[in-house]
Amino acid sequence: MSHQFRCAATALAALAFATTPLAAQETGGTPYAAADPFVGTGGEGHTFPGAVAPFGMVQLSPDTDTGCLIRECYGHAAGYRYDDPTIQGFSMTHFSGAGHSDLGDFLMMPVAGDTVVLEPGDAKQPGSGYRSRFDHASETAQPGYYAVTLADSGVRAEMTAGTRVGVQRYAFPAGKAAHLLLDLRSSLYNYPGKILWSTVRLRPDGTITGMRETRGWAPGRKLYFAIRPSAPLTGHAFLNREEQVPYKGFQGPSRGADDAAQLHGTALVARLDFGVLDRPLEVKVAISSVDEDGAVANLDSEVGGFDTVRTTTRKAWEQALGAVEVDAPAPMRKTFYSALYHTLVAPSVLSDADGRYRGPDDQVHQAKGFTFHSTFSLWDTFRAEHPLLLLVQPEQRNADFVNSLIASQQASPFGILPVWQFQGRETWTMIGYHAVPVIADAYLKGVRGFDPAKALDAMTASARYAPYGGLGDYMKLGYVPIDREPEAASKTVEYAYDDWTIARMARALGKSDVAAEFEKRAGNWRNSFDAKTGFLRARKTDGSFRVPFDPTAINYGSDYTEGNAWQYSWFVPQDQAAMFKLLGGDAAAVKKLDAMFEFDNSKVDYSHAEDIAGLIGQYIHGNEPSHHVAYLYSYAGQPWRTQERLKQIVESQYKPTPDGLSGNDDLGQMSAWLVFTSLGFYPVAPGSNEYVIGRPFVSRAALNLPNGRRFTVVADGLSDANHYVGRVTLNGKPLERSFLRHEELMTGGELRFTMQAIPNKSWGTSQAARPYSMSTAR
Amino acid sequence: MSHQFRCAATALAALAFATTPLAAQETGGTPYAAADPFVGTGGEGHTFPGAVAPFGMVQLSPDTDTGCLIRECYGHAAGYRYDDPTIQGFSMTHFSGAGHSDLGDFLMMPVAGDTVVLEPGDAKQPGSGYRSRFDHASETAQPGYYAVTLADSGVRAEMTAGTRVGVQRYAFPAGKAAHLLLDLRSSLYNYPGKILWSTVRLRPDGTITGMRETRGWAPGRKLYFAIRPSAPLTGHAFLNREEQVPYKGFQGPSRGADDAAQLHGTALVARLDFGVLDRPLEVKVAISSVDEDGAVANLDSEVGGFDTVRTTTRKAWEQALGAVEVDAPAPMRKTFYSALYHTLVAPSVLSDADGRYRGPDDQVHQAKGFTFHSTFSLWDTFRAEHPLLLLVQPEQRNADFVNSLIASQQASPFGILPVWQFQGRETWTMIGYHAVPVIADAYLKGVRGFDPAKALDAMTASARYAPYGGLGDYMKLGYVPIDREPEAASKTVEYAYDDWTIARMARALGKSDVAAEFEKRAGNWRNSFDAKTGFLRARKTDGSFRVPFDPTAINYGSDYTEGNAWQYSWFVPQDQAAMFKLLGGDAAAVKKLDAMFEFDNSKVDYSHAEDIAGLIGQYIHGNEPSHHVAYLYSYAGQPWRTQERLKQIVESQYKPTPDGLSGNDDLGQMSAWLVFTSLGFYPVAPGSNEYVIGRPFVSRAALNLPNGRRFTVVADGLSDANHYVGRVTLNGKPLERSFLRHEELMTGGELRFTMQAIPNKSWGTSQAARPYSMSTAR
Repeated sequence: MSHQFRCAATALAALAFATTPLAAQETGGTPYAAADPFVGTGGEGHTFPGAVAPFGMVQLSPDTDTGCLIRECYGHAAGYRYDDPTIQGFSMTHFSGAGHSDLGDFLMMPVAGDTVVLEPGDAKQPGSGYRSRFDHASETAQPGYYAVTLADSGVRAEMTAGTRVGVQRYAFPAGKAAHLLLDLRSSLYNYPGKILWSTVRLRPDGTITGMRETRGWAPGRKLYFAIRPSAPLTGHAFLNREEQVPYKGFQGPSRGADDAAQLHGTALVARLDFGVLDRPLEVKVAISSVDEDGAVANLDSEVGGFDTVRTTTRKAWEQALGAVEVDAPAPMRKTFYSALYHTLVAPSVLSDADGRYRGPDDQVHQAKGFTFHSTFSLWDTFRAEHPLLLLVQPEQRNADFVNSLIASQQASPFGILPVWQFQGRETWTMIGYHAVPVIADAYLKGVRGFDPAKALDAMTASARYAPYGGLGDYMKLGYVPIDREPEAASKTVEYAYDDWTIARMARALGKSDVAAEFEKRAGNWRNSFDAKTGFLRARKTDGSFRVPFDPTAINYGSDYTEGNAWQYSWFVPQDQAAMFKLLGGDAAAVKKLDAMFEFDNSKVDYSHAEDIAGLIGQYIHGNEPSHHVAYLYSYAGQPWRTQERLKQIVESQYKPTPDGLSGNDDLGQMSAWLVFTSLGFYPVAPGSNEYVIGRPFVSRAALNLPNGRRFTVVADGLSDANHYVGRVTLNGKPLERSFLRHEELMTGGELRFTMQAIPNKSWGTSQAARPYSMSTAR
Repeated sequence: MSHQFRCAATALAALAFATTPLAAQETGGTPYAAADPFVGTGGEGHTFPGAVAPFGMVQLSPDTDTGCLIRECYGHAAGYRYDDPTIQGFSMTHFSGAGHSDLGDFLMMPVAGDTVVLEPGDAKQPGSGYRSRFDHASETAQPGYYAVTLADSGVRAEMTAGTRVGVQRYAFPAGKAAHLLLDLRSSLYNYPGKILWSTVRLRPDGTITGMRETRGWAPGRKLYFAIRPSAPLTGHAFLNREEQVPYKGFQGPSRGADDAAQLHGTALVARLDFGVLDRPLEVKVAISSVDEDGAVANLDSEVGGFDTVRTTTRKAWEQALGAVEVDAPAPMRKTFYSALYHTLVAPSVLSDADGRYRGPDDQVHQAKGFTFHSTFSLWDTFRAEHPLLLLVQPEQRNADFVNSLIASQQASPFGILPVWQFQGRETWTMIGYHAVPVIADAYLKGVRGFDPAKALDAMTASARYAPYGGLGDYMKLGYVPIDREPEAASKTVEYAYDDWTIARMARALGKSDVAAEFEKRAGNWRNSFDAKTGFLRARKTDGSFRVPFDPTAINYGSDYTEGNAWQYSWFVPQDQAAMFKLLGGDAAAVKKLDAMFEFDNSKVDYSHAEDIAGLIGQYIHGNEPSHHVAYLYSYAGQPWRTQERLKQIVESQYKPTPDGLSGNDDLGQMSAWLVFTSLGFYPVAPGSNEYVIGRPFVSRAALNLPNGRRFTVVADGLSDANHYVGRVTLNGKPLERSFLRHEELMTGGELRFTMQAIPNKSWGTSQAARPYSMSTAR
């Protein structure tokens, strides 16, 4: 998904073409060493290079620019852009690959020497503020660790993060006084009026606590902090830089002095002084959505200083990345593990060490028996990110996700599951109720540790909530009418898919009435499918399709969501067979798929649409609606065509470099696609308990499954030339179908591909060999 | 105390002169019936007529004007002014007699019929908005109950309040549709930028919850609400009237429709529709400083509807007002019980039914073993209000106050006791650390149920906190230097008095080191006393008195706090004897007292100083620094002169009418003065465990003490002519001294005055007969 605000001047990124030679079977180095947080920090990826623990609450990362106005921020959604020349500071919260933004909370910057400028200054005028130039040569980034030398001050800055803490370490030049700035004015996606309120307080024990409330992507978002430096303060100043204070009130102990114990306002900056230090300054910071005490308790909950936290987090990453072992040449290993790394960042822990968290109702709740996670970019992540986490993370983590979603629904002022939630707050970004497939997929794949009846209630409540996204009309008409609700075509098909997953779970729970209701709704995609043109189209209340109709048009608020008829017409994951039938059969479907991939874009211009990147004809890999499309050839009995397209996509859309992602990583979805695809299969229809077999991009992979078993993929003969699947065996026995069942995977065993240079046009062609479709379900 | 903002156009109120004939011994009616909440709602009193339970969290009262800009609000500090022609609505929170203001939270107004205007409109243009004209003839106010007919709509509006709930009852004209507006834009002391954030939410059970955060007298103040109407909603609209929304973000389920389940913003108004009702609508509302769940739980904690709550609260008032039984003519009874009523409104309960509350650090705390109270107008209330509550309220309530003060100190970002706190938030209004005498007085008078060591620590921490109000310099120099801190003269003497109370408590606790330190500080008043002029004056750091010096000048930020040298030169309650000695002896002191009362004000103009009201020469009864002064004649051995001055003050400064208070009631202090004075004694020096005997203004009074005993005051022969004390007996034995000991009072018994027409110039004249002074302490 991506940012829906139309940002004026963002040009379509040049398509990156990457060669990832598979010939050389280099296998050196650990998964940890192969993962490169810089991948995606340039180009369109919107990832951050800073320190984060797996699913950590804190993402401590440099911000190269934060002061942008609302229409200039898209590229800085993660705070850092690889091609920026300066660093403004280091802040505690970042999205990994979001298309819209916020966060950048609690920016801090070391200052050396006697002059402390309180303004960040202009990146184009070195020395005009506290921001500093830097050189990539001085930069290091590893999972959970980031370091850079700030060229202007000579300060060596290192960052690490635990689950709920971030630790900064600053080595100041000898003899220079050490200061630390905390700029509470700074925020990603900043604009006048965003900072509603903030406070900063120096506690008697030297801990600095405070909070900030922002009117951003999640309005009225409160976040608290606790900062504990390793050296005692020699002085401090708390300043309010508001130009106009509407009501100054009576003066407290400070009487305008800067060294008061507390200050509040909407434009605060704090200067902390440490004098000349004889060792590096460590600054441990914790955050909390609940209150200052929560932040302090989080600070205390993770023991030790920089090196301890770094080591603990490194071990956590080694374990998390060790869930998949792959043999591949170094560039592919780097691409693969950088992707796997990026799939393990979100959803993020939100609950405090004591289990409290702030929910979607802005009230404080207690998570009982689970850890509350937030940052659910569900329109993106229901596709491959959540299915991947079911394979590479413990059942507890996945149950935590489901429990968090249920708890959110119960606390929701609207009584519905999250749409796009971060730090417990709803943003209403994108469409659908895609928490539903996440929960259904988890349940159907055996995740327990939550109340399935409560879950189903939450799912049906969301699917039946009339005021949301045209659902009232959808329930009446069987489709979302475009004259009453924008992006109606996209909504209709996505709702129908979500409905199918409800039906699947209801069926599994023996709730046949619910199952029947939603099985019926699952067919609603047909109501918006125009057999005449072969496209999914937006219908009006009177039943007519809206005209004029241009299948290549991409506009916000149009018939489609971040896409057009080309991308959206393939979205019937629950019943591709029926869709292909409507299209005129397999041959027609394949012809249309080819037409999509081979479309001549010379006459279209998508420079106004930020999220449209990574184009192969009208296949747009940089955004999610296309993600399953290459696998659809297999539904038409032509898996070799899938294999061809996958090669085309992997080679053109992923690189082990900062500009290595052709689109926003979207909290792991872009990366999860690569991880699955590299392994040779992909969850086209979460809820079906099937994976469509593509072709592997690594010569060997072992999945260390959460149930303790091991599933190995071997690609015999894999090379750049041998990019077709010749034959497949599962545990030594020939596998003739082009899909893998989840239970087969979880049992452990070996999936062995024999790769060859020419397509095998007889494998996976029969009807029985094709993946699940609702209407032809076996 | 009063508002320190200079408000431009507030003229000095004409002095009200009231005759309160004492001849006729009318005694009819109960204390409850005699108390009139309208007293003080006109003139300078700043009280509100609405419904409140004793010390209740909710003060549900009509607001006749709230939309004023910051410099026009002084007169509307309690929302209601008796001479205003319209009512804008009814809101849940009000100060009783404050000189500065805020609150007016959650204004609601019934609307009848089909047209619902969302703006309050102009009071001068009837029908221009939802505000309504009203007639005092339709108004009723009793403790815990208020009713009025809204002339424009014909709605009969009734209000009652429990401890944590308010209940409104609206009888709509037959056949007219009933609506209720909730205007979250409305606030007392409103100005652009005050509303930082607000939310409103309709819960599935019909409860409306939400919150508001304001940047007012207490900045960053969050208050939550829960509203439960007795009839189901037939419709609703939540609207944001912000002219410019800095960031609209993505749209939720509402997509701009008004009937969304939740809305947030900074200018919200909610319309609740009920259709045509066949019975009055009851609207039960609870508030919470903690969160919405706290408000809902508070709502549930007090059972029943309007009549139940009204009856419960009426019983609570009957019990509270029954603490003193007086015989007096009706006007005096009304004055007396209206005053007693006003002393029982604050400090207000703040903790929720479950004990949680938001403290001065904006964090949520749990009150363990006590009920957290706030609204501490301490510069006013340490004088007589808190000493009175020690006599008329249970020990538990007084222990609650102390525990609340200690808990506040422990949660304070500055580590000090409250200065002027409401809803747990510090306002930094007025001077001193007068929580100290409140605690010391309570402890010395035997209140237990708190940790005295912790209390003493909190007191000394406050008295030693250098950044507050020039305390650093005070500790170094022995006075606050005016060239470094405004109002230095007032601060010096008030600190010295507070210090003396710390010494008294430390001595009682056997902490002789602390006692010695603060006994020394208690003499610091001498450092600012100019024997040459006979005035307390502001000294500069170099030791010289600041010139020019005008003892009649009253200016904000001058040498004095809301006063001048005339009023402040008498503030040595801990050692009046030493002060009189410095003045040149008793005769000189009396001469100076007379000069004060008889000062010719024809050449002074205090129209710029809002708080300066109730002048008798330079004696200014409308503000607190004068309150003990009439009793000082007794320290010079001339109690008959005290008796004369008291008659002069009571008759000129109090009336049983809306304009019956000559100055702001200041959360009960003006009223407490009247209650004590009526009984015949007054606590000039809280901490001394003595009351200075004045003269009674009621023929008989019985105090039903919190220890279960009864102390009776009888004034034999009291009449307008017999206004001098002839003789005094305590339990039948002649009492020759002009003071009463606290333990004598608490033992129970009878204090009998024989009143006469001529002064008894031999009673109370000896040194031994005079009240406590530190330097001559017996």
